[in-house]
Amino acid sequence: MNSTDTLVKIIMDRWNGAMKNCDELLNTLTDEQLAKETAPGKNRGIYLLGHLIAVHDAMLPLLDLGPLKYPQLAKPFLEEADKVATDLPSVQELRTQWNEQKQDLKQQFEKLSTSNWLEKHTAVSAEDFAKEPHRCKLNIILTRTTHLTYHTGQLILLK
Amino acid sequence: MNSTDTLVKIIMDRWNGAMKNCDELLNTLTDEQLAKETAPGKNRGIYLLGHLIAVHDAMLPLLDLGPLKYPQLAKPFLEEADKVATDLPSVQELRTQWNEQKQDLKQQFEKLSTSNWLEKHTAVSAEDFAKEPHRCKLNIILTRTTHLTYHTGQLILLK
Repeated sequence: MNSTDTLVKIIMDRWNGAMKNCDELLNTLTDEQLAKETAPGKNRGIYLLGHLIAVHDAMLPLLDLGPLKYPQLAKPFLEEADKVATDLPSVQELRTQWNEQKQDLKQQFEKLSTSNWLEKHTAVSAEDFAKEPHRCKLNIILTRTTHLTYHTGQLILLK
Repeated sequence: MNSTDTLVKIIMDRWNGAMKNCDELLNTLTDEQLAKETAPGKNRGIYLLGHLIAVHDAMLPLLDLGPLKYPQLAKPFLEEADKVATDLPSVQELRTQWNEQKQDLKQQFEKLSTSNWLEKHTAVSAEDFAKEPHRCKLNIILTRTTHLTYHTGQLILLK
């Protein structure tokens, strides 16, 4: 394993660790707890759960792994703030999608090599990527990892 | 810039971005807001601020950059939970330490090269590091970055 492989590993380990922590937390929270606000007047647990699924779903086209699987989540959980949409999916539906997505991402990510992770993501042009090689697929994983831990820090307040 | 340099850059950019986000948030929060609980019965802002300084201070010996600068913060903000210590420093003192530390870490980190970041951190033995090269100094930065964003997600609830 060369030093580039080592750094890919530490980032993927951190993503997998953050997903595991959030997943274990979600399994300890009841549907009733997820229906509550994380702090008075702030986002509810159900909104954060839907938001994480929608953000992780949006990684698929960015990483050139196919189209969105849950396009219906973009409007209520990305474009709109919490408590705007009047017909959210149930916590149970979101839990099912979280679990499906967790397995799917794990399987897809395990197939990618170090050189795949260093390829450009789809939102940057080839011309820009030649000058800015840090705008690679692995950078998407890293920014989504810190996004995930940010919201996990909020979800834990529901306990 | 080779691919290893690129991955060092994406991790250091993420650390710097997370520090900037937290710093800007702290500058918008008043001392009164930081004295409040992030959610009912949960950690106060002042505790999270002291906790972040203490955790970042503990990186110095781990990265072989010298001894702790704020050893007095370890007991109230690492070993003890919030509301246990009866004589915490003031929010103003913690803000001063945060600002000093922010500059100091930035200066020290800018001096490190890619090969420095790939060196073992001080909590792993040379023997273990030979088998587990991912236990490098840069991994400390990465885990502290996700720790920082986790607590930033909580601090923003004080707004």
